[in-house]
Amino acid sequence: MIAVVKETATQDQLDHFVKWIEGRGFKTNVSQGDNETIVGIIGDTTQIDPFLLESMDIIERVQRVSEPFKKANRKFHPEDTVVDCGHGVRIGGGNFQVIAGPCSVEGKNLFEIARAVKASGATMLRGGAYKPRTSPYSYQGMGERGLDLLVEASAELDMPIVTEVMDPRDVQLFLDKGIDVMQIGARNAQNFSLLREVGKTQVPVLLKRGLSETIDELLMGAEYIMSEGNPNVILCERGIRTFETRTRNTFDVNAIPVLHHLSHLPVVGDPSHATGYTRYVRPAAYAATAAGADGLEIEVHNNPSEAWSDGAQALTPAQFDDAMRRIRLIREAVTAPVEEEK
Amino acid sequence: MIAVVKETATQDQLDHFVKWIEGRGFKTNVSQGDNETIVGIIGDTTQIDPFLLESMDIIERVQRVSEPFKKANRKFHPEDTVVDCGHGVRIGGGNFQVIAGPCSVEGKNLFEIARAVKASGATMLRGGAYKPRTSPYSYQGMGERGLDLLVEASAELDMPIVTEVMDPRDVQLFLDKGIDVMQIGARNAQNFSLLREVGKTQVPVLLKRGLSETIDELLMGAEYIMSEGNPNVILCERGIRTFETRTRNTFDVNAIPVLHHLSHLPVVGDPSHATGYTRYVRPAAYAATAAGADGLEIEVHNNPSEAWSDGAQALTPAQFDDAMRRIRLIREAVTAPVEEEK
Amino acid sequence: MIAVVKETATQDQLDHFVKWIEGRGFKTNVSQGDNETIVGIIGDTTQIDPFLLESMDIIERVQRVSEPFKKANRKFHPEDTVVDCGHGVRIGGGNFQVIAGPCSVEGKNLFEIARAVKASGATMLRGGAYKPRTSPYSYQGMGERGLDLLVEASAELDMPIVTEVMDPRDVQLFLDKGIDVMQIGARNAQNFSLLREVGKTQVPVLLKRGLSETIDELLMGAEYIMSEGNPNVILCERGIRTFETRTRNTFDVNAIPVLHHLSHLPVVGDPSHATGYTRYVRPAAYAATAAGADGLEIEVHNNPSEAWSDGAQALTPAQFDDAMRRIRLIREAVTAPVEEEK
Amino acid sequence: MIAVVKETATQDQLDHFVKWIEGRGFKTNVSQGDNETIVGIIGDTTQIDPFLLESMDIIERVQRVSEPFKKANRKFHPEDTVVDCGHGVRIGGGNFQVIAGPCSVEGKNLFEIARAVKASGATMLRGGAYKPRTSPYSYQGMGERGLDLLVEASAELDMPIVTEVMDPRDVQLFLDKGIDVMQIGARNAQNFSLLREVGKTQVPVLLKRGLSETIDELLMGAEYIMSEGNPNVILCERGIRTFETRTRNTFDVNAIPVLHHLSHLPVVGDPSHATGYTRYVRPAAYAATAAGADGLEIEVHNNPSEAWSDGAQALTPAQFDDAMRRIRLIREAVTAPVEEEK
Repeated sequence: MIAVVKETATQDQLDHFVKWIEGRGFKTNVSQGDNETIVGIIGDTTQIDPFLLESMDIIERVQRVSEPFKKANRKFHPEDTVVDCGHGVRIGGGNFQVIAGPCSVEGKNLFEIARAVKASGATMLRGGAYKPRTSPYSYQGMGERGLDLLVEASAELDMPIVTEVMDPRDVQLFLDKGIDVMQIGARNAQNFSLLREVGKTQVPVLLKRGLSETIDELLMGAEYIMSEGNPNVILCERGIRTFETRTRNTFDVNAIPVLHHLSHLPVVGDPSHATGYTRYVRPAAYAATAAGADGLEIEVHNNPSEAWSDGAQALTPAQFDDAMRRIRLIREAVTAPVEEEK
Repeated sequence: MIAVVKETATQDQLDHFVKWIEGRGFKTNVSQGDNETIVGIIGDTTQIDPFLLESMDIIERVQRVSEPFKKANRKFHPEDTVVDCGHGVRIGGGNFQVIAGPCSVEGKNLFEIARAVKASGATMLRGGAYKPRTSPYSYQGMGERGLDLLVEASAELDMPIVTEVMDPRDVQLFLDKGIDVMQIGARNAQNFSLLREVGKTQVPVLLKRGLSETIDELLMGAEYIMSEGNPNVILCERGIRTFETRTRNTFDVNAIPVLHHLSHLPVVGDPSHATGYTRYVRPAAYAATAAGADGLEIEVHNNPSEAWSDGAQALTPAQFDDAMRRIRLIREAVTAPVEEEK
Repeated sequence: MIAVVKETATQDQLDHFVKWIEGRGFKTNVSQGDNETIVGIIGDTTQIDPFLLESMDIIERVQRVSEPFKKANRKFHPEDTVVDCGHGVRIGGGNFQVIAGPCSVEGKNLFEIARAVKASGATMLRGGAYKPRTSPYSYQGMGERGLDLLVEASAELDMPIVTEVMDPRDVQLFLDKGIDVMQIGARNAQNFSLLREVGKTQVPVLLKRGLSETIDELLMGAEYIMSEGNPNVILCERGIRTFETRTRNTFDVNAIPVLHHLSHLPVVGDPSHATGYTRYVRPAAYAATAAGADGLEIEVHNNPSEAWSDGAQALTPAQFDDAMRRIRLIREAVTAPVEEEK
Repeated sequence: MIAVVKETATQDQLDHFVKWIEGRGFKTNVSQGDNETIVGIIGDTTQIDPFLLESMDIIERVQRVSEPFKKANRKFHPEDTVVDCGHGVRIGGGNFQVIAGPCSVEGKNLFEIARAVKASGATMLRGGAYKPRTSPYSYQGMGERGLDLLVEASAELDMPIVTEVMDPRDVQLFLDKGIDVMQIGARNAQNFSLLREVGKTQVPVLLKRGLSETIDELLMGAEYIMSEGNPNVILCERGIRTFETRTRNTFDVNAIPVLHHLSHLPVVGDPSHATGYTRYVRPAAYAATAAGADGLEIEVHNNPSEAWSDGAQALTPAQFDDAMRRIRLIREAVTAPVEEEK
């Protein structure tokens, strides 16, 4: 971390600042130029609040040199992490997986949808049993009965399941049921109690980016999980909130290569939530694949207009099937080896 | 709720849509003009996802007519709610209160700060025992010992205390300790499990707006609490996330009159988090007061550069004292009766 | 346009409102339901400010039914517009074109870059002669001499050129020089004097989305040009401003299918400005292609670290060559006919 | 400017970088710590694009130490600038002024409104003759005839007038008519041709913040004007674009003290555009005053529902009169001297 000292600071003030920093267990490295004095702060600066330093009278600006995330950081773990989701499905490090299924588990039609998406090439099954809804009056999901249906479908189809956990008190139930991948939704992206709780397990966690989270904050969320001992984190870009109202969210497709640059964790794109309208889901899915995502999470429903939640953004099995063919071709295009230069 | 039907829709499609809506228990009112057909949907439309309707082939646009919040809605509760925070302190409906204290409870200096802010006119004491921190490696608060110190200070100074609860599993502890006001932080603004849990008590809840929450979503958060039976909700505008980087957040001062227009609940401004820098806290506090806030929450520390967290945005007791005098004058200016027109 | 009248409105107030609307030359269609009264306003409502209506005492909400853009609207022009850019290059309606070249024209190296990008498959040449720079102290471009170099390169390579015009007083010069495509930059996206001026010509205009423009506003910018008589507008998504700081802008890849849904005009993606870092340009270019863009605008420089402006986001010719191969494959994947359903 | 060099950089690469920087006329100051190497770049770094440096292989991060604005910078001009607007009206440095009048000049009612606002204490008259409208089909203002009416009203009431200029070709006309203050609207905030053109005059310029401009960019806009020789710039915060839809814009009230901290120029708040609804204009006006603005710009209309544009946000003369009384009291509260500390 670097602190730039104001030109107006006296030597006494500078000495006092350096002493204060060192008193907190850090080393310093003062560089005095003609126009500016820079204090390098060396040690575990993840504990320092840069706003605190910037508020000091003699400090002009503060700049982090190293990222505040460690376990999620590619610098300290250059090779891609591959997460084993069970049923022989691995994601990351060149392994591309498509997670598909209904927004919510509604009943027996889960099996029909699951068979369809598997036939088209999906390798993991999604479905919500506990639904985070903006309104307390909206349908909140089937709960435990939904988990049972998912587990049953998983067994029948030999596919790992991905389903959302919203409450730290439910984590044990998810473990008991044998849920393959626990999803943390956008609204819980900074629910640190929940992050810690799933971090105490070894079950893979699909961590969605918060509605207005920065990329660094998403990685700090992963860090919360990993710091508790669970290295099996899959990151998910699902759109951020902006001023644009023609789509439910703005799909930050840039985040996919940025996350790959900063971190070794697998990155999945969610074109359903990132657009909010069926008609835009496929272009967004292709974009995510083209940008290098390690996987996609797509809502599919056999009768979208009857879906209990978020049906507006579900593909039909036929649309999904067409999409899967193009996704495979795009994936080939972007992963083909670089040709010899002319 | 109104659905505008596309010009290209056939009568058959329209009939099918109307039948589908009515099959879900709603009444409809179809108005066919020369250029457009409008279907009014009557009933408890809070359960309908407008995105779902907009995704249908024949639907052009959907518009909510009534807000999705009920218990928090001024339409159904025109008079201001006054929340009793204990120790004789009531907020809302013309009662203006200032909540002050350190960001985190650090130890015995809490008492010194509490005495100072009370002497300057603060009526409620704040201090965090459980701290939501972006980094798992940052200081996470004193925990239960911090609660005990707050309770002790509350008793000594006869002031209600406001402190943050982060985990639904901690709510019972807060009840047992006798915490006067439970704060829900911005990062938990849509942690619905936590909102429900505090909603099952009768303890006043200070609900902070999420980092990128809309005003309607903040009110839906209040609705979660109120729908469980707790009517004692205080709303808090604490800045939203934008592209501006010269301040920690952008203080949406407009939200204060908007919330008063839409809801009967008291509204508090938090100029400390809304700016992030001590030098801007006072102007923002004055702005919130001038915009009609029912109260303020301000961080004060007797030695800001030693504060364990967020010290960057704390006022000294002397700064707070000066601020309180001006806040009282501004409050008088905006609440004075309208003079006879010329 | 629909105005929802408040439940509290009296019949007198409603009558007065209807009379006022009709007095401005519109027809109305009043539909009184049990719970709400809706006034349909019929006529050229593009002239009505919805905020004005919403400010009236008796009005609850106002909703546009028809979009305020007409000439740019796909509803009134269902088939794709194909813009002829000269030199036999047509864009839109299935014609995909890649515009490449340096950010700024710097001198004779323009020819070297032009040859390279043409060899790799680019069909149009870009280069700035007039540069909009945030700082008045930054390099502002070669000006007229830059235009001459572009025209020379265009003749040598038989490629149309795309270059930015910033001032309505310069449009005649661009015409005199024979510039093939005039670009309007993001900062001038709502410079209505400039939009009108290029609208008076028949030269194709590449219109970039403003830094925080909505999709509807971008289309209204096109409407300004088209309303003056120039139908040759190419829309360009180049990233929008959000809170994310790891990239220069957030590439709103969703905007590509949304623009195709709303409008018949060709849509180009600009992955250079949308990311700001060379390392992310290719993934973003692939994403734009996959999302269905009709073309790309990509900065290429033979020695990026020497580029006079925006060199940070330029590809080398070798990187561009590799990218072009993948772009062609992705374009094939997304435009292949849908296979027979299973 | 500081460049942090990656740990992986070799000595050769570092030497090459330093040589390259020095070759562009800068001095360097290399500080090698245990963990990081920092290159201080000394000279007029306003010409360097930090994105360019960050794109280099060996550079980790780049940080500006000094702001890129000079003439607008308080560091080089510590005392407040006072701008003389004519008719004895000066703004800044303790002089507080209220600009009021209709959104658009519509005709003779301008005089009635002008008399009313003057009677209530307004010291400057506003009114648009050239209106930047999102739609080419909306009313675009009276043009030159509107300027004449403004000049007439100015003479009758002895008040300086503020009116918007949109096209560099119109600046001479504004000079010829004797317009007191030229306003640059939010949509032209980065129309650099227009900024330069008004910079060549000595007429005061009221520069509005762009819809998504950062505070630094607003100051760079002022720098464009000042670098041409016109020091008479008044900055205006008028709301920024965010995801919130309950108001037309989000009033960034923090920007007022931030601009005062960074710059010596007067700062005005525009509560009309910052909210978009009459009912929120007064709270926002009070907030701006409380936050330390040097003035306000408020839309007033004698019959708001008849106003030709933006009537939705106009106060009636009676509302304005009540507001002025409270504004004076708030201004007193925030400018009163600090009392002796206890």
